[in-house]
Order: sequence, then C-alpha cells, then structure tokens
Amino acid sequence: MSRIDGRTPEQLRPVTIERAWSKHAEGSVLVSFGDTRVLCTASLTEGVPRWRRGSGEGWVTAEYAMLPRATNTRGDRESVRGKIGGRTHEISRLIGRSLRAVVDTKALGENTVVLDCDVLQADGGTRTAAITGAYVALADAIDWARDHKVIKAKAQPLTGAVSAVSVGIIDGVPMLDLRYEEDVRAETDMNVVCTGDGRFIEVQGTAEGAPFDRAELDALLDLAVSGTAQLDAIQRAALAAPRQD
Amino acid sequence: MSRIDGRTPEQLRPVTIERAWSKHAEGSVLVSFGDTRVLCTASLTEGVPRWRRGSGEGWVTAEYAMLPRATNTRGDRESVRGKIGGRTHEISRLIGRSLRAVVDTKALGENTVVLDCDVLQADGGTRTAAITGAYVALADAIDWARDHKVIKAKAQPLTGAVSAVSVGIIDGVPMLDLRYEEDVRAETDMNVVCTGDGRFIEVQGTAEGAPFDRAELDALLDLAVSGTAQLDAIQRAALAAPRQD
Amino acid sequence: MSRIDGRTPEQLRPVTIERAWSKHAEGSVLVSFGDTRVLCTASLTEGVPRWRRGSGEGWVTAEYAMLPRATNTRGDRESVRGKIGGRTHEISRLIGRSLRAVVDTKALGENTVVLDCDVLQADGGTRTAAITGAYVALADAIDWARDHKVIKAKAQPLTGAVSAVSVGIIDGVPMLDLRYEEDVRAETDMNVVCTGDGRFIEVQGTAEGAPFDRAELDALLDLAVSGTAQLDAIQRAALAAPRQD
Amino acid sequence: MSRIDGRTPEQLRPVTIERAWSKHAEGSVLVSFGDTRVLCTASLTEGVPRWRRGSGEGWVTAEYAMLPRATNTRGDRESVRGKIGGRTHEISRLIGRSLRAVVDTKALGENTVVLDCDVLQADGGTRTAAITGAYVALADAIDWARDHKVIKAKAQPLTGAVSAVSVGIIDGVPMLDLRYEEDVRAETDMNVVCTGDGRFIEVQGTAEGAPFDRAELDALLDLAVSGTAQLDAIQRAALAAPRQD
Amino acid sequence: MSRIDGRTPEQLRPVTIERAWSKHAEGSVLVSFGDTRVLCTASLTEGVPRWRRGSGEGWVTAEYAMLPRATNTRGDRESVRGKIGGRTHEISRLIGRSLRAVVDTKALGENTVVLDCDVLQADGGTRTAAITGAYVALADAIDWARDHKVIKAKAQPLTGAVSAVSVGIIDGVPMLDLRYEEDVRAETDMNVVCTGDGRFIEVQGTAEGAPFDRAELDALLDLAVSGTAQLDAIQRAALAAPRQD
Amino acid sequence: MSRIDGRTPEQLRPVTIERAWSKHAEGSVLVSFGDTRVLCTASLTEGVPRWRRGSGEGWVTAEYAMLPRATNTRGDRESVRGKIGGRTHEISRLIGRSLRAVVDTKALGENTVVLDCDVLQADGGTRTAAITGAYVALADAIDWARDHKVIKAKAQPLTGAVSAVSVGIIDGVPMLDLRYEEDVRAETDMNVVCTGDGRFIEVQGTAEGAPFDRAELDALLDLAVSGTAQLDAIQRAALAAPRQD
Repeated sequence: MSRIDGRTPEQLRPVTIERAWSKHAEGSVLVSFGDTRVLCTASLTEGVPRWRRGSGEGWVTAEYAMLPRATNTRGDRESVRGKIGGRTHEISRLIGRSLRAVVDTKALGENTVVLDCDVLQADGGTRTAAITGAYVALADAIDWARDHKVIKAKAQPLTGAVSAVSVGIIDGVPMLDLRYEEDVRAETDMNVVCTGDGRFIEVQGTAEGAPFDRAELDALLDLAVSGTAQLDAIQRAALAAPRQD
Repeated sequence: MSRIDGRTPEQLRPVTIERAWSKHAEGSVLVSFGDTRVLCTASLTEGVPRWRRGSGEGWVTAEYAMLPRATNTRGDRESVRGKIGGRTHEISRLIGRSLRAVVDTKALGENTVVLDCDVLQADGGTRTAAITGAYVALADAIDWARDHKVIKAKAQPLTGAVSAVSVGIIDGVPMLDLRYEEDVRAETDMNVVCTGDGRFIEVQGTAEGAPFDRAELDALLDLAVSGTAQLDAIQRAALAAPRQD
Repeated sequence: MSRIDGRTPEQLRPVTIERAWSKHAEGSVLVSFGDTRVLCTASLTEGVPRWRRGSGEGWVTAEYAMLPRATNTRGDRESVRGKIGGRTHEISRLIGRSLRAVVDTKALGENTVVLDCDVLQADGGTRTAAITGAYVALADAIDWARDHKVIKAKAQPLTGAVSAVSVGIIDGVPMLDLRYEEDVRAETDMNVVCTGDGRFIEVQGTAEGAPFDRAELDALLDLAVSGTAQLDAIQRAALAAPRQD
Repeated sequence: MSRIDGRTPEQLRPVTIERAWSKHAEGSVLVSFGDTRVLCTASLTEGVPRWRRGSGEGWVTAEYAMLPRATNTRGDRESVRGKIGGRTHEISRLIGRSLRAVVDTKALGENTVVLDCDVLQADGGTRTAAITGAYVALADAIDWARDHKVIKAKAQPLTGAVSAVSVGIIDGVPMLDLRYEEDVRAETDMNVVCTGDGRFIEVQGTAEGAPFDRAELDALLDLAVSGTAQLDAIQRAALAAPRQD
Repeated sequence: MSRIDGRTPEQLRPVTIERAWSKHAEGSVLVSFGDTRVLCTASLTEGVPRWRRGSGEGWVTAEYAMLPRATNTRGDRESVRGKIGGRTHEISRLIGRSLRAVVDTKALGENTVVLDCDVLQADGGTRTAAITGAYVALADAIDWARDHKVIKAKAQPLTGAVSAVSVGIIDGVPMLDLRYEEDVRAETDMNVVCTGDGRFIEVQGTAEGAPFDRAELDALLDLAVSGTAQLDAIQRAALAAPRQD
Repeated sequence: MSRIDGRTPEQLRPVTIERAWSKHAEGSVLVSFGDTRVLCTASLTEGVPRWRRGSGEGWVTAEYAMLPRATNTRGDRESVRGKIGGRTHEISRLIGRSLRAVVDTKALGENTVVLDCDVLQADGGTRTAAITGAYVALADAIDWARDHKVIKAKAQPLTGAVSAVSVGIIDGVPMLDLRYEEDVRAETDMNVVCTGDGRFIEVQGTAEGAPFDRAELDALLDLAVSGTAQLDAIQRAALAAPRQD
C-alpha cells in the first residue's frame, strides 16, 4: 500500500523545525511537515488580560491564520473580509487549549504568551504542524523569560511537551500525517494532540464519508500515538541546542 | 457515587422532545436535556447556494446561538458586538457536519435546509441537545417536503438517525450527560455524536485538567455510546406520531 | 365586520403571560398575543454604565431581536450579517424608552436592568407584546432585588404600569391588535404605549397607504386606550401570584 | 410666554430653502430651520434594487447623517465606528417612509431616488428640516427626470407635498418647532409629518418626562398642523422659481 | 494653452475662505477651490488620547470624508458600508501629518484638536483644499483656546502656516490646481504641501500614465511652490479680521 | 559618517531575492532588504473584476500586510480587529499603483494578478522591499501565463521593470535604504519608486521633523535614483535563471 509520495501508511512526512527564525519574537519556529510550512512565534509580555489581573497566574493564547496564497487557490484575506471565519476560530482555539494543557500558569506568573501560527504554505496538517511548532517556540520564549529575569530562574511553567498529528482512513487503510490530497479523500479524519508521555490532550475525529466504528477509531488512535511519539523526539532534538537570542 | 441531581453516573437527564413548536418552520422542536432547552427549527427552501447550483445535490447547514440570558450571567448579544464568537462558530459547524453525515444530498435534490438551534436556557450539553433536537426537526422538514412535493414521495434523504451526548470524568468517575456545574468541574470533557446504529460521526475529547489516558478514553466512549442509544430511542418515540402542519 | 380569526374589531387576541419561564433571569416572562410569542427576560445587575456612575441613579435598557425562523420566511441572523438592522434598533429603543417612563431611576439606585425581548414566533404586534411582557419581567426583577437586598425593602422604583397595543385601519375600519396578515393590509398602522392609568407614553402612527385625517387618528387612539386598559388588567392578574425564584 | 429666541409658542423659526445648492445632484437643497442646516440631495438613477426589478415601479429611499461637529460636542463618525447608530437608522427610515407616502412609484417607473440628508449644523428639529428640505430636492429631481426624458413628460410621480415639524410641551405650554435647548427641556416631544392638504403621514409622540393625556396630545397635534401648513407655503414659494441645472 | 475654465496653466481657481461657518466648532471654515467646497471644523478639547497622557504634549488629528453626492455619481456612504475606504484613510492621514508639521505640541499642552474635513462638493483638489482650509480653522481654534484660557495667553502652538495644492502634467504641459476633468486626464499628478515660507511638508507625485522624468518633476515642484505662496497670502488675508465666536 | 550597521550613506543593505519560494503561486518571491523579509506572491487567475469585464483589459492589484510579530512589539491582527488600518490601506494602494505603472493591461488580456506582500520580519523599508519583490513575482507569473497559454506566447504585458527604495535625512545627512532605527530618527523620509530606466513612478516625501527645502529634496532624489538602479540590476540577476514551476 504505497502513498502518493511513496510513504508507508505509518510514516510521517519529513519534519523540520528551524528555531530563532525571527529576530524580534521571544521564541520563533519555522516548522515543516513536508510541504506544509508554518511560522510560529511566541510573544511573551508582562501582564495579563484584565479578567486575570491579580490572580498571580499567567495566560497563554493562540492565533492561527493562513496567508492568502498558502493554498492552491488564493483565498480572501480575513482582514479584508472584516471577519474571521469559523475554521480559523476553531483552530486558534484548539492550539491555545493544547498549549495551555502543558503550562502551569502559576509558575508563569502574571505574564502572557501569544502564539501566532501563520501558515506560509499549506499541504494538509496545518493545525498539527502549528501545535508541534508552537510548543518549541513556547519553550524558547519561556527560556528567554528566565534569562531575562521575567520569571524566576527556577520556575518551570512547562509541565510537559505537546505535539499533534493527523490520521485518517483512506480506502479503508488508516494512515498517518495526511497530505492535502489524502485529506480530501479520507473517509474519516482525526487530529490527535498528545503529551510527550503519550497521554491525550485532544482527540477530534470526524466522519467525512461513512460513520466509523470502534475498531477503526482504535486503529487511528494507535497510529496517532505512534506519530506524536516520533514528533516528540524531533522536538527534543531541535531543543537540544542552546537558544539563540 | 451520587450526582448533584441524584442521577447515577450512567444516567441521562430527563429528555423531552416537543415537535411542531413553531407554526412557521417546516420542522421545529423544543428539546430539553434537563434544564437545557433548545429551540431547533428546520427551514427547507428550494434552491441551493451558488457554489452548488447545477450539481443536483442539496445542502444542509446549521446556526447555533444563545439568547443573552440563557446563562446564569447575561452575555453580550453577538449581533450587538457585530461579530460571532469562536465558540458559536465551532458549535454551528459541528451541528452542520453531524447532520450532513446522515443526509444523502442527492436524494434531497437542489434544496437547502437551515437548522437554527437557539438555546433558550442553558445548563450544560447545549450542543448535544441541539444535535439531538435538530435531527427530529430535520426529519419533520423532510417529511413536509415529501408531502408538499418539493422532493419525490419515495425520496429518502435521511440515511440514518443522529444524536449526541456529553461525557466527562469528574473526580475520577466517568459520567454521562453533564450539567453545567459538572461540566465546569470535569477533568476531561467529551462530546460524542453517533448514528442510530451506534457508529461514530464525531468524537471530540478535551483534557480540561490533566491529560487523559487510553483507558479513560475507552470508558468515556462506552458511556457515550450507551447514552446515544437511549437518545435514539427517545427520538424514535417522538417521531412515532404523525407530523402536524 | 368579522376578522380572519373571528374577532370583532375592538377585540384583543388571547393574551397569556407566563412568569418565571427561565431559571436564570431575575425576571422572565413568556408572553403571547395570539400566535406572537416573545420571551422577555429582565437581568438586574449592580452597577451602571460608566457615563452614569456616581449619579446615584440606575439605568434600564432593552434589546429586541427575532429568531431567524420566528417569521414565515427565514431571515438572516443579525449576528451573522455583522450588523443590526434599522427596524431592530428602532424597536429596542422604543421598548427601552417605554419602560424607563415608569421607572424612578433614583429609587432603583445604581443598578442596571437589561430587558431582552426575543421573539420566538411572530404574528404581528411583536413590539407591543414585548413591551407588555417586559413590564411584568421588570416588576419581578425589582421584586427580586428587594428580596435580595440589592435595593431597599421600601424602595418602589416602579411609578406605574405600562402596556402597548397596535391599532390600524383596514378597509376603512379601525381595528385593535393586528395579526400579521392584517398589519400588511392596514392603510394606517399605529402603536400606542400607555400607562396603567391610561395616559400616553408613546404614540407612533404611520400612513402605510393613504394619509389619515384627524377623525381616523382619534378613532385609533380611542381603540388603543381601551386595548391597553385590558392589557393592564391582564398584567395585574398575572402579577397577583407571588414571584417564584 | 416668551421663548429663548423671542418667538411666541406658535411661531416657527425663520425657514430658508436654497435650491440647486450642489452642481452634481439632480435635486439639492440647503434648508435652514433657524440654526439647523441640512443639505438634502436627491440622486435619481435609472434602475431599481434587485427585489423590485421587473415590477415597473420605482423606489425612493433616504439616508440621514450628521457631520461630527454639527453638534455642540463632537460626535464620533459612524464610518469610523464601523456601524450606524440606532437614532440614525430610525431617522433615515422615517424620512424614507415620509417621502414615499407622496410618491406614486408606478408613475416614477423603474427609477430610484436616494435622498441624502446631511446635517451640517444642528439646533433641534434636524429630522423635520430634513423631510421638509428633501421634499423640495425630490420635486426638483423629478422635474429633472422629466426634462431629461428619464420619465415621461406627462408623468406626475408626486401625489402631494410633505413637510414636518416638531412640537413639545415645555413648562406645561405646547410649543412649535423646538430648538435644541427647548427639546432637552420638553416633557413631551412630538414629530408630525403632514401632507400639503393637512392630513397625517406620521405622528410620533414621546413622553420624555411624565406621561401625557389626550388633551395635551390634541393641543400638540393642532399646533403641528398649523406649522406644517406654514411650511407647505414656504415650500411652494421656493418651488415657484424654475429649476436651475 | 487655455484650460476648460479659461485659466492659464499657472493660475489657481478662485479660492474663498469663509470663517466661523458653524456656530458650534472652536474653528470652522468653508473653503472653496472653484467648485470644490470643503467644510473644515476644528474641535478643540481638553485632554489627549491615552497613549499621550502625562506627556505634557497635545495632539492634532484629522478625518476626511465626502458626502455621498459630493461627486458626479453618488457614492456609497462609508458608515453604511461599515468600513472606511483606503483613499479616505490615506487622505485623513495626509491632512493630520500636514497640520502636525506646523504645531508645537508642547505649546499646545495636553489638548486635542480634531480637524474634520467634509467635502460638500467635489471638483478635484479636495485634499489640498481641505489642508488649506483646515489650517485656518486650526488657527481660529487655537485663538479660541487662548481667549478661553485653555492654553496660556502667550502660547503660540503654531510654528508656521500650511497650504497645499495639486499640480499635474496634461498633454505635456504642467498645470496648477487641477479640476476633476483635468485630474482624470493628467499623465502625472502631484500634491504638494508647503509651509508659509515655501518649504516642503509633503510631496506626493504619481505617474498616472507614463513615468515622469526629473525635468518634469522639477517643473511641477516649481509650479506647486508658486501656488502655495498664493494660497498663503489668501489665508493671511482671511485671518486678518478678528475671530468671531 | 558611519551607520549603525557600518554602511556608508549611499549604500543599500544586502538584498536577496529568492524565487519560487511557494509551490502554489504562479510567481512567488522571498525578498530581503537586510533583516526586512517580505513574502511576495503573484496569483494569476483568468477573468477580471465585474467593472472591467468585456474591456479586453486585465487588472493588477496588491494587498500588503504584516504578520503580528513581524515587528519588535506584537501588533494586533487586522483580521481580529475586524478592520484594516490606514497604513495598510495606503501601502497596498501604493504597491498596486506602482506595479500597474509597468503593465500593459491590454497585453495582459482579461486576466487578474493579485500581488500579496506579507511582511514576515520588519526592519524598515517594508513597502519598498515589497514593491521590489512583487515585480519579480509578477514577472514570473506572466511568464507562467505564457507557458500555460493563458496569454499569447508573444504577449509582453510588462512594459518595464520597477523597484523602490527609501531615503531620508538623518542628522542632516541624506541616507539610502533606512533601517527601522534610522527611519525613526529621520527628519525627512521619502519613498521613491522608479522604472528600470530611472524614471519616476511615485515620489512620496514627508517632513517628519522640520520641513525640508528644495536642495534637500534634490539630494534625496539623487540618492533614491542611484538606489533603484542598483535594485534593478539585482532584479535582473535574479530573473536571469529560468523560472521553476
């Protein structure tokens, strides 16, 4: 069972994580899952939104967007349309929830991190690449905050790692990390967000064609967990080198 | 292990489905899951959106909203704020996808059904009540379309039934159909949409507190499937009586 | 001269007022004028808008809206369109002004009441039903505030009662409380808001077809005053029972 | 009983109507009611909105707005705020309805007139000045259309004249054509739109302070009818001279 | 080489500056460049925007807009469209920058001046007329502020005068102060803002047809400087009379 | 006179132009002026906007935007704010005008090119880098159109090359291609857009501090022309290699 790009069903696309891509952000990563490229920046600022002031706790939020020609056909700019679409909202919320799941907001103190995930080129799996890259940008931003005394030298706001991958059933075969062409053909499509130790943060499965049964769901979950384990290793490797300012 | 309202962990709240609630809509249902009340109307009109014209296929879409004082504290009206929030977008999209999963758009012909799900009173599970009620409203609207010769007398655009329920883990115990107070306390929160024959249309699980493991996920899925089976029976009972115009 | 529903020209439709419809709001009423059903909630919160702070006076405001399928043909959601239409604005302002006319804002203290009037089903007279129901919801909210010590036990912020009715001339005959079909056919259409003692708070008459003369105007005013007197009695009867929390 | 500007209660402010104020519009009038100055332009174009095409009937609509510093304190621009306020909507609708009441849309043919009423300086009565001026601009635009063969030489789309005036009760005395300072002090405030032959197109009375009784209402209506009769004469005088291109 | 209105290439249109046009604004000017008429009001209020508080410095900003029928064909209202167009934004920013260039914000103290430039009739050169008129309105507002002790009697926030003019190349001939018809035909179009002593505040030249060379650019700059010198004299003459309240 | 990065006043920053950066767009360029990086994509589609249909002519337009953390401090996303700022509008219009100046829309036929210029990292001169990069992306898109028979093999819609550079006066010294820190300190700031043969398409000079005189203006223009000549050579070198699909 060979895929359009020659991968086996259980294989990820080539994944690259380029840290310190931007000179301005406290953390910045250009992540690629094959031809999908997402620029993830982590902006850490002192202070929190009004509703959280005085709590002693920090806040982490995310905004996801696509450049108009990230896709095969140019899409309208949401700023020009004057409103954000449902898909954009949904993915921004997913990224924010996923990262907050590994952040101890007390240890972060009253600081805010905004994770901007801008898709420069899309070929399926943009939300999972965004989560995977945003984690690395967040880790760098927190490291920066320690170095710049914004948080205490011993504070460890990160309680774990997080990565995400898509899985789907195509022609009856469960497959890992779908490209756009595969995503379109998938009968069932699932995005799974896991911690570094293999537990679940988010499971979102959708029947695009026929409803799916428990056995299919189980097979997809197995595949996803193996994929996020590989991504966790890639993240660790990327973070092994010291942070550059 | 008793719950705030005396239910067992595996028990649904009292569910009622009142058909023909509105005199204008082709299908209309006031659905209650305990104190959660959602008015679901199905508006069936001839014609489809521009991008689908000439395809011979119909379209089903949904819009979810809450009245400002459906909740304990009054929320701003989205029409007054001038934009729709991410949560609203997300739930509208979920309802639309869920219902489309049981519709044969070819059999529907070039007709459009808009499912409006307006929460009149909220106490947890508004999206699952909305899906469960919207299915009944949709069934009535399709029946109306057959009676009024908008679709052929023998056309059967519905390929199955659909219902939805929330499940969550509270103090380590998996529980079915969470009330608002339970939802707030849940460590893990999942919404599951199933067909009448027990297959999955949508699975959305989120770790609100600690990440969850495979065993917990399995327990939640079991509970959800038993819940949607009960809802399916309630829907069948509600639809047993003939439709009133 | 018989009307489509058999009423005489001077007759109201059956009017029902169901208090405590919602468990969350301080006051809530489901009011029906025939098939027109409006859910009116009164949300009382401590504090006032910025421009009124320190004045010692409270504030009462209203928001009117229709569910998309409250009418015979589905209308676009104003939240989706991103802006509120002129008609909605106009009616919200009318309801707010009408209720403020019977409120002593000093006696209310620095508290705010928002009256949400959401039309669940429309068949003409939605704004007059909304005003009539909102008054009862407001009375309950003020009673709640006294019980909960938000205002003093002896404070009486309500200086009177208020109700409203539509009148119109159809085929030359002045008629009370128009249904939608009648409203469409009316040559002249008037909405009148009165106090419980029969004085005017608002008179809005519009020539839909030919201009109207003074005699016609006088006849419409007479009819409207008799209608609001009946509505006042219905409101009193509804409020006779003690408030339920 | 003398007023701040020395008028008697029954007296209008000086009213001027300057036709052909703008070289571009088919009809344009700078109208003054004392210090209130409104620029009214009538733009006549061939064709009608989509929903009216093929009906053989024309359409007349209006847009009212205030320049930011038309008032004593600068107001935010509605274009900058990104939305139109309720008051603006309400007045635009009133002007449109008032003018349509004297237009035979069949005689107008499938042509559209947009009446723009922009308040350059405000001192009370902006909506009544706008209606009074817009009628003259509309008359000129229709005359232009006849001269330019857009409508037939014998077509008479105007079925009458229309003018409007405000009345109010101040310190118990009914007064005509209120200035801003008077308007603020009025217990009851009414705007009346009449045809040239003294019938009513629109009556809008509001109790700003105490509710008003029938005798007060009658006195206000009498005063308003005498005011619009004077305005009708002023409009006729203004229109006596031939139209300039 | 005669122009459509008989002017020589180096000649301005008749320019008039009418001060104290509005009774409300601290400074107000109706400026005409031929048929182009712009109402410029300067609203001076105590206080500055949040980001400037405590700086001891004032702020000057501008908003430009056109009435819908200021032009030959009616344009949509930006308030109705719900957003401001790029051209409007661009011109508002240009006016604000131009006036700030001659304001000593320290001498102004923590006061804000908003310059509203509303085009009542357009015939080319609306932005240059707006800048030229806004300067006079600003001078009056500052004079008002001195008289009303809002700023010190000896404060002189104006460091110079400012005026603006358009120039363009038509059929190879550089021309001053283009009318709309000329502007449309111009191969190159330039707006130049100068101080009273002939230095440049802003130079904006655009090739509408063919690119232009250095010699053409030089000729246009010469023409513009001579034009703004004449406008400076007209402004001085207008300001020679004492300010009226 | 040495600059913060060691350049002489007449020196450009290192400029790189990377073609075919994106696999989806017909033309795509990642352009760098020092640390300023802009992704320029040219999307060529058949057809033109409605107002141009049937003209036989094409259309070229541009949209400029910044990623939120392209700058030192994170800026709000314009899509989230729901409106585009004046600066964004202004630059988008400038880019569009500049590119249209070298396009023969008849030779382009009824095709549309949208140039998206998204600033990934900003350090001054984003609009000039955008224009310079967009030209190369446009050249590639037109080449693509010829190869794919969208336009005729012999059609040459490009009438010349275009590039842009900023110049400014800092501490009295005219300097080329300002970095952000220099831009902030400049007394006068100018953006100049030239054709490949050294003629002007756009000249925009602004006095940020004191007004500037003719001698200063002349020095800036000389510097800008020498800068765009260098950029023209860099563009030619980049375009020397064949286009990759």
